[in-house]
Amino acid sequence: MIKMKNVIVIGAGAAGMSAASRAKRLNPSLEVTVLERSNWASFAFCGIPYYVGNIVNGLNDLVFYPPEEFKKRGIDLRFNKEVTEIDVDRKVLRFTDIKTGKEEKMSWDKLVIATGARSKAEKFWPEIKKANNVFYIKHLDSAEAIRNYAKAIGEGKKVVLVGSGYVGLELVENLARLGLKVTIIEAMDQILPKAIDRDLAELVEQELKSKGVNIIKGTPVESFEINGKKAIKVKTPVGYVEGDMFVIGVGIEPNNELAKMAKLSIGNSGGILVDEKTLTSNEDVYAAGDVTEHKDLITKQFIWRPFAQIANKMGHVAGSNIGGMESVFMGSLGTSALKIFDLIVARTGLSKAEASNMGFDAIDASLKSGVKAHYIPGGEKRINIKVVADKKTGKLLGAQAIGPSESVFWRINVIASLLTRNSTVWDLFNSDLGYQPTLNPVWDPLIIASRLLMRTLGEKPI
Amino acid sequence: MIKMKNVIVIGAGAAGMSAASRAKRLNPSLEVTVLERSNWASFAFCGIPYYVGNIVNGLNDLVFYPPEEFKKRGIDLRFNKEVTEIDVDRKVLRFTDIKTGKEEKMSWDKLVIATGARSKAEKFWPEIKKANNVFYIKHLDSAEAIRNYAKAIGEGKKVVLVGSGYVGLELVENLARLGLKVTIIEAMDQILPKAIDRDLAELVEQELKSKGVNIIKGTPVESFEINGKKAIKVKTPVGYVEGDMFVIGVGIEPNNELAKMAKLSIGNSGGILVDEKTLTSNEDVYAAGDVTEHKDLITKQFIWRPFAQIANKMGHVAGSNIGGMESVFMGSLGTSALKIFDLIVARTGLSKAEASNMGFDAIDASLKSGVKAHYIPGGEKRINIKVVADKKTGKLLGAQAIGPSESVFWRINVIASLLTRNSTVWDLFNSDLGYQPTLNPVWDPLIIASRLLMRTLGEKPI
Repeated sequence: MIKMKNVIVIGAGAAGMSAASRAKRLNPSLEVTVLERSNWASFAFCGIPYYVGNIVNGLNDLVFYPPEEFKKRGIDLRFNKEVTEIDVDRKVLRFTDIKTGKEEKMSWDKLVIATGARSKAEKFWPEIKKANNVFYIKHLDSAEAIRNYAKAIGEGKKVVLVGSGYVGLELVENLARLGLKVTIIEAMDQILPKAIDRDLAELVEQELKSKGVNIIKGTPVESFEINGKKAIKVKTPVGYVEGDMFVIGVGIEPNNELAKMAKLSIGNSGGILVDEKTLTSNEDVYAAGDVTEHKDLITKQFIWRPFAQIANKMGHVAGSNIGGMESVFMGSLGTSALKIFDLIVARTGLSKAEASNMGFDAIDASLKSGVKAHYIPGGEKRINIKVVADKKTGKLLGAQAIGPSESVFWRINVIASLLTRNSTVWDLFNSDLGYQPTLNPVWDPLIIASRLLMRTLGEKPI
Repeated sequence: MIKMKNVIVIGAGAAGMSAASRAKRLNPSLEVTVLERSNWASFAFCGIPYYVGNIVNGLNDLVFYPPEEFKKRGIDLRFNKEVTEIDVDRKVLRFTDIKTGKEEKMSWDKLVIATGARSKAEKFWPEIKKANNVFYIKHLDSAEAIRNYAKAIGEGKKVVLVGSGYVGLELVENLARLGLKVTIIEAMDQILPKAIDRDLAELVEQELKSKGVNIIKGTPVESFEINGKKAIKVKTPVGYVEGDMFVIGVGIEPNNELAKMAKLSIGNSGGILVDEKTLTSNEDVYAAGDVTEHKDLITKQFIWRPFAQIANKMGHVAGSNIGGMESVFMGSLGTSALKIFDLIVARTGLSKAEASNMGFDAIDASLKSGVKAHYIPGGEKRINIKVVADKKTGKLLGAQAIGPSESVFWRINVIASLLTRNSTVWDLFNSDLGYQPTLNPVWDPLIIASRLLMRTLGEKPI
């Protein structure tokens, strides 16, 4: 067993608690301490919209494991502890108890930085600090605040969502469920600009509009107009938009202050650069989750992807390496998904435009297809799917899909697993997907997509 | 363009019509004739249970394309034509019109044999020929006969299903839907003996029993007792089982008479051996679908897998090669799925026992997991999943899953795509599957399965 004693994990989110649990489990002789600034550990950030919409009743339902569970695992989990200083040469840090103001010092043999991401909302619009009706998601406390405020103002009142990312749109659905009138203001000329192509985004826009949501595109929010303690409208280049409540669903960045203090190598996004073992530029400091950059599996370039499943995996890998079992996280593809009213939206890998920008000779195949056999009830439901490949090599590069079916998500996961294995269009054709008439058509849309791409590439591998 | 004229396709099922359509599309100068013994072309065999259960109204709903569509495509589709003689040296065949008795001769440049599978029921139990209440599925006419008879005898009457394969169990669900009392008699000591492991099969048995279906296992049907034109009971080693109607859901084989006549190489199952181009041992004769054996992607051995999606793919590949575009079908994994009442069952690749028999040092990981985040409604639903790998190399070998969720099917498809790419347990861990709380848990059961397997193998690739 590797000889070492103290492991300190900063941050008790998905990455931090995965790392702490894994390290302690593999090597029970480790003393594992987790320092967390908030009152929450191991909570489901992605569940917040469903808490707001009353789908989830209590905040505790969003906690994967209660603090006692970590105590049982032998992990010293401490809340309200803000780390204020890190000295990587002497391997010591200093932290303050936010409530008591008490300071402590602690030394480590291995450190894990898992400080997550933070909102840039107050940097962009400092005036919102004065308002009590402008929200953005951070910890579970903000979920509580959003839900309470939304319920307090009541049905028919106006909510403005600034931006249109995944979590923001899931909030829209849930705020609408509470009976509020939602307007989305998006700076780019489509919603979900970072996630999907414009033609597919238009289908999401139709769905939102059909559910009574207003959308204002190509319109940045310049400032908030505050009256007393309330924001009453936002200013845009084309005029003002009024609201009773405002939610900022855009602009997060790696929470990298400590990483900077520790002089770790940092990428373009501000995320800590880590290798396959999730080790930073310091050999005794690991980092995992939303505070890091890791490699994209296709482009092999560092990228920032603050997704919960990646944070969990990276935390697990960091914990394994610290606990004495060599483990690797190879990178990610940006596979992500959204449920918005009756639609599922998902993507993985590169869009055609992204692929072209990376130097690929990108081609794509788009189709609209039934999700099951035409003669089965529900067989009339259609999904749109788009698969991107490289014309020179036939290599698959990415896919996007949208439609009223969970299978949208899973078809994208099939492509994701093929992308992970560096596969081609011919591999997709030869993927032996199952067939059952209530579950998919005999020619699954994925296989049809491979056939469409083979029209350009030829049916035999190059 | 390749110079040739006559293409004859024998059999108008999935494989035959895919081949004919593809060849004609790629090379419109070809004269493509399809000779079909029945009255049906391009029909959905797998939809028959749903026709029996009134989910599908008309038989024509089970037809993918009507005969006129093939006429429009320039294909000469001829019904009621039985091929009686094949001379591969002179490249000529002889066929009879079943209705008129008229004989014709026709020569080919390329021949496609797509004669499908046939039931062995009358070989096993010749006495059933006399009975008008013993059924097995062949063409759509048999679907009509089963439905009509089931409706005629009416609710509460007893149906005996002999065997418990996929289509048989789907018939059970649909016969139960019509109000009939179903008893399954299975010769092996579990249901679905060729499809899934016993522990998972027990879950299917529980589901069937909860829906009022009787199951008699480990009990072969020795003979049918016939009274006049009706079978009244079956004889088994442990006694008689009475029924008002009998359905045989077991025992099919490649319909290989013509292949034998053509002296083509034939495998152990009786299926025609084809290469990656779907070419038989004769350079001008292709074969596709249920009448063929093709290679298993893992074991590289020839295997017989009469599945519709494979038939369509093989037909497409045969048609492409005939039409002048080189195309390959690499093989299959036996990915298959069943919907039985509220459960989905799916498998791909090898079971642990099959893998051990093939010489692998097989290990497996089994788990029961939520299908979505625990805090989302429906998050309490559990699925069982089992992933098999090779201990020496970490190579994935197969997976099985069962549960009340479509995601069972898709998770198996993710494994299937990884198997197609010859992947390892570490590749599964690193597959960047998406996460959305209404669609899966943040640690997807597939990724947890990889972690369980890595406990034995180590977390870093060997």
